Amino acid sequence: MGNSNITWHQSAVTKTDRHQLNRHKSCVLWFTGLSGSGKSTLANAVDHALFELGFRSYVLDGDNIRHGLNSDLSFRPEDRKENIRRIGEVSKLFVDSGHIVSSAFISPFQGDRELVRQLFEPEEFIEIFVKCPIDVCEDRDPKGLYVKARKGEIPEFTGISSPYEIPDNPEIIIETNKLLIDQSVEAVIAYLREKKIL
Amino acid sequence: MGNSNITWHQSAVTKTDRHQLNRHKSCVLWFTGLSGSGKSTLANAVDHALFELGFRSYVLDGDNIRHGLNSDLSFRPEDRKENIRRIGEVSKLFVDSGHIVSSAFISPFQGDRELVRQLFEPEEFIEIFVKCPIDVCEDRDPKGLYVKARKGEIPEFTGISSPYEIPDNPEIIIETNKLLIDQSVEAVIAYLREKKIL
Repeated sequence: MGNSNITWHQSAVTKTDRHQLNRHKSCVLWFTGLSGSGKSTLANAVDHALFELGFRSYVLDGDNIRHGLNSDLSFRPEDRKENIRRIGEVSKLFVDSGHIVSSAFISPFQGDRELVRQLFEPEEFIEIFVKCPIDVCEDRDPKGLYVKARKGEIPEFTGISSPYEIPDNPEIIIETNKLLIDQSVEAVIAYLREKKIL
Repeated sequence: MGNSNITWHQSAVTKTDRHQLNRHKSCVLWFTGLSGSGKSTLANAVDHALFELGFRSYVLDGDNIRHGLNSDLSFRPEDRKENIRRIGEVSKLFVDSGHIVSSAFISPFQGDRELVRQLFEPEEFIEIFVKCPIDVCEDRDPKGLYVKARKGEIPEFTGISSPYEIPDNPEIIIETNKLLIDQSVEAVIAYLREKKIL
């Protein structure tokens, strides 16, 4: 001990300090849209692109949230609200830690998304509406959920038996039935460069 | 668009990929001990040292958890258990994102800490017992909580009216009444180097 010249700092490391270490700012990319619209695919593709460019990024989606932090929550309305609230709070921690965090969840209600937005500085919350006609989503049906929902096996399924509230004023709209994934990723990265986050 | 040569990767970025980008492994430093033992002070000092050395680190403590993610939880036993469960799950996300995350919470029960440990690979969970006699903690009483607890104003206060279960087999023990903070920080950093995490 004693040879690494450690000195105690009473102050905590700030978000700005972390931005300087990472050489980019942090923000949340909040991907919202119907099941099958391509949110998680796009979020992971953006994350991979950011990683390859040397930026610090991370993805929150059903794969790492549903069976972990939110494993105690059902799909009932009050639990869906709590689901989004927790994801918003965890996204805030990641932004504070200096990451560009991509959160990919249906998040169908404007009010819930607005509550998450209010956790952040204005320029830190970037709402991305992953827009795709429901018949295309239903045709893709990657997890077979629309088939089950049409049979009435899944109650309150967004777009079928529960509403999806289209974002009022999203920062970015990506139409996944019109763009290739690479083009969609480029649109997001271009936005981050334009806003001087990268 | 089209000038940044982005190519879509179907695979998600892995934890190992992130280790390579950061040039260190990730883990959780789980600081447990009585109120006033110095957990949060030490966690922040370790975090600052790691930051200055260029490593990616972050702190989870009462300041950023209690009023955010866990603002819906009380201090009742079932809520204290849920408090620790959620912090464990968030720590896991940070470890997956490539961070050395320092979690500083009393976490008085061996069973709760064991559940958190089981979320991780064996070498990823580093339990640090922040050891300090209760009379020293009570003497420090930085938030005036012991005074209130002795008056009976705080029910189930750890060490007074609720037990603190000493860790069975912690990876590190730091005696904050015997070491200077710089020495404590060095001991933690030395452990991380010895285990090839740094």
